[in-house]
Amino acid sequence: MVNQQTPLDTVFHALADPTRRAVIGRLLHGAAPVKALAGPFTMGLPAFLKHLAVLEGAGLIRSEKRGRVRTCHIDADRLAGAESWLADQRAIWQGRADRLADLVESQPPGKE
Amino acid sequence: MVNQQTPLDTVFHALADPTRRAVIGRLLHGAAPVKALAGPFTMGLPAFLKHLAVLEGAGLIRSEKRGRVRTCHIDADRLAGAESWLADQRAIWQGRADRLADLVESQPPGKE
Repeated sequence: MVNQQTPLDTVFHALADPTRRAVIGRLLHGAAPVKALAGPFTMGLPAFLKHLAVLEGAGLIRSEKRGRVRTCHIDADRLAGAESWLADQRAIWQGRADRLADLVESQPPGKE
Repeated sequence: MVNQQTPLDTVFHALADPTRRAVIGRLLHGAAPVKALAGPFTMGLPAFLKHLAVLEGAGLIRSEKRGRVRTCHIDADRLAGAESWLADQRAIWQGRADRLADLVESQPPGKE
């Protein structure tokens, strides 16, 4: 049961880390080799590769190797899925807030 | 360093679990006592309380105790923050896709 993770589980988990969010932010501007991606971070390459593996496992990035160079690409569909879930929650919340406002306005004046 | 978690870290971590997302989905419809929230889940109460603690730690819910009843409320601001981050990423991605489309259209016909 514990290992039956849904795409939302793995995507939100992948997004819960500043290094992984920074990698996504970088790849949204275009594909990049692993070495260039790792450049700005002070952590060792093995630790950085683990972050990439989490992103790839969540379907947020994919990578391909040509010769000695592994290049990463963003795969934005899963980001859209997470945003869509959050938008659905907001719609529920907004609908409730609107109904509460209607209820308040429909109260006869002077009644509490 | 590891413990310096930002709101986005803790919110996305909290959302990475189906039980916690279900609790949020329930609380968006209105406040509820812990017992009623726990009802639909087969896990034990201690395990469920840990999920609530993660949600509360992320600022997604808050709770108050009156007598013996602890009632939970949603706090939708942090959800909005996560949605906003994802919307920003989509804007970057969309901007890049639009620029690529413009580039393709601006190519002289017949040139590859």
